[in-house]
Amino acid sequence: MSVITLTTDFGTRDWFVGTMKGVIAGLAPGAQVFDITHDIPAGDIRAGAFALSAAAPFFPEGTVHVAVVDPGVGSKRKAIAVRSKNATFIGPDNGVLSWALREAGIDEIRFVENETWFVHPVSNTFHGRDVFAPVAARFAAGARFEEAGDQASDMVKLRWPDVQREDRALRGEVIYVDRFGNAITNVATEDLPAENDVVVRSGDISMRLIPCYADGAENEPIAVSGSSGFLELAINGSRFALTSGVTVGTAIEVSW
Amino acid sequence: MSVITLTTDFGTRDWFVGTMKGVIAGLAPGAQVFDITHDIPAGDIRAGAFALSAAAPFFPEGTVHVAVVDPGVGSKRKAIAVRSKNATFIGPDNGVLSWALREAGIDEIRFVENETWFVHPVSNTFHGRDVFAPVAARFAAGARFEEAGDQASDMVKLRWPDVQREDRALRGEVIYVDRFGNAITNVATEDLPAENDVVVRSGDISMRLIPCYADGAENEPIAVSGSSGFLELAINGSRFALTSGVTVGTAIEVSW
Amino acid sequence: MSVITLTTDFGTRDWFVGTMKGVIAGLAPGAQVFDITHDIPAGDIRAGAFALSAAAPFFPEGTVHVAVVDPGVGSKRKAIAVRSKNATFIGPDNGVLSWALREAGIDEIRFVENETWFVHPVSNTFHGRDVFAPVAARFAAGARFEEAGDQASDMVKLRWPDVQREDRALRGEVIYVDRFGNAITNVATEDLPAENDVVVRSGDISMRLIPCYADGAENEPIAVSGSSGFLELAINGSRFALTSGVTVGTAIEVSW
Repeated sequence: MSVITLTTDFGTRDWFVGTMKGVIAGLAPGAQVFDITHDIPAGDIRAGAFALSAAAPFFPEGTVHVAVVDPGVGSKRKAIAVRSKNATFIGPDNGVLSWALREAGIDEIRFVENETWFVHPVSNTFHGRDVFAPVAARFAAGARFEEAGDQASDMVKLRWPDVQREDRALRGEVIYVDRFGNAITNVATEDLPAENDVVVRSGDISMRLIPCYADGAENEPIAVSGSSGFLELAINGSRFALTSGVTVGTAIEVSW
Repeated sequence: MSVITLTTDFGTRDWFVGTMKGVIAGLAPGAQVFDITHDIPAGDIRAGAFALSAAAPFFPEGTVHVAVVDPGVGSKRKAIAVRSKNATFIGPDNGVLSWALREAGIDEIRFVENETWFVHPVSNTFHGRDVFAPVAARFAAGARFEEAGDQASDMVKLRWPDVQREDRALRGEVIYVDRFGNAITNVATEDLPAENDVVVRSGDISMRLIPCYADGAENEPIAVSGSSGFLELAINGSRFALTSGVTVGTAIEVSW
Repeated sequence: MSVITLTTDFGTRDWFVGTMKGVIAGLAPGAQVFDITHDIPAGDIRAGAFALSAAAPFFPEGTVHVAVVDPGVGSKRKAIAVRSKNATFIGPDNGVLSWALREAGIDEIRFVENETWFVHPVSNTFHGRDVFAPVAARFAAGARFEEAGDQASDMVKLRWPDVQREDRALRGEVIYVDRFGNAITNVATEDLPAENDVVVRSGDISMRLIPCYADGAENEPIAVSGSSGFLELAINGSRFALTSGVTVGTAIEVSW
């Protein structure tokens, strides 16, 4: 039973995502299609890249991941398929796949250019339906990776903001704000000391690192070890990012 | 592997859509259920009709399409099932199925009145769960079309706004605004001349026809060949309909 | 073909729900996963409990229902699995399962504490992914209920607001407001007299009980027999709760 995931900025208000699934159902009957999210802010490649990187490791071997955050649709940007050890990733070559592949590792990159695989006529504005969905379905139905197109030597990679390491401190930044208003940072929780009291600062907000949201006092900004493996800033039961002014790119400092 | 699609105005905030799927899972185990959208504006039959017509052609042969935009639920409006060459459509007889059938063609119309197929007790307010979902599931599980009910000689059809053709111009209107703020018109792109520069006007906004969103300059209103086969008005990376005042019904003129 | 349902307050904007499905796809290949809703207001256990109770009866025998509205995630609250005659329910022991089980009946309660079933490392903030999804998948794949953990003698139950019965009247309250602005009450429609004219009052609003929304006059507050088996307050084509000030907990009186 093949598994395909979809990550897009198409929203669910119109027929776009459903149409992609129709194409898949026709070409890979019985394949399971799971939505990661379709509410990536329009054109926000970084948010799409982060969402895919957070979800992909939890899918089974052989999953085909499709990510379409594609402001350059119809222009000269390339479409690519990337094979990692366990999965296949398909999307525009604009970086949206790159953070998921930081972890999964790149085995091989191919251009997606086998037009016999596409839905025709290929529109200029909806490659999710005409290019990415059918190519994902072909892979899910057993087509060989090599048939997608020529090998590519590299792909567009989004810069991953590196954490600055000091003696008893780490300097990082906020990389994603989730719908609860939690601010996810680029500081991996495995880099935090286990035995020391850790303090997180952002501007004039100071936060202690505690085990879970529920341990936070009312209205207290807190830091927790987030589920994606990164330090996360939050307020228990409230929307930290909304009231704190903290947003993607805001600097943070972790010290102990 | 049977495929059922759902198009409704039920939203996804409550349990309505999930409950329809529960009914289907019980009556057609293993059938795949795909959402086209559940965010049709409440009671907006035209929007539902357009969404269904845009998505349905991309689903495989044998798909059962359910559309429930049904302000008259519980009143005397009829429920119908319509067979086209490749698919089956089920919904209230209020026009919501009619635009999808403009293209698919009508082979046969039946009233949905076989009460042994319904979920009992049949509520007055949720025929999506009690009538349309179970009937779709019966079809998906192999029930004969004739068992649904008596043959109907006709169905309610929404007026499709025809395009006025002049010597070097077409006059049409906006028929749907998508979540990106793109205004989809009733002008089929196959009716546009390939070799000439095309200009689109709406009120005092003038737009050139360009190949894709990404070719538009910043804040430039543009026209593109949309993925549903119709001319589409947009601004690259912005919400055209929000800032332009253009909405469903707004007149446009295409000239060359 | 196993069926799993998901009811959460995770929203669909991020990757949370998709990630749960990835875990399930890996542990119970081919299981069908249906969303009841993910838009329960954050932490609103009652709303989650009501949504689950409204949807669950329509799913087939053997369904595994997962509900994660879990403000205490990572704290000392327990996770439980509950077996009813026809289905299995999994969630935090905070009452979110309790209203669905009022009707389904409780056969057996187990703590969810078999750590070999979890996704490791188990995060402190996302038990939907690390605990509830994998346990649901184990059940769907055929694991024995007893393996989940020790038997529990009881579970947290939300108070169900009882209706006060008088001679020719019932006193109840609003228990849920749906996305159409319809106010669902705790008055079961089977308790209403069939033969008498029924009047519903809430504050200074007086409503007649009519068969369906479409029978309401413009802007007329009305009462209908809702699809979940409860009396429902509405305005045909409008959002009753938005304009009336009626909300969860508002008292109503039904008389005849």
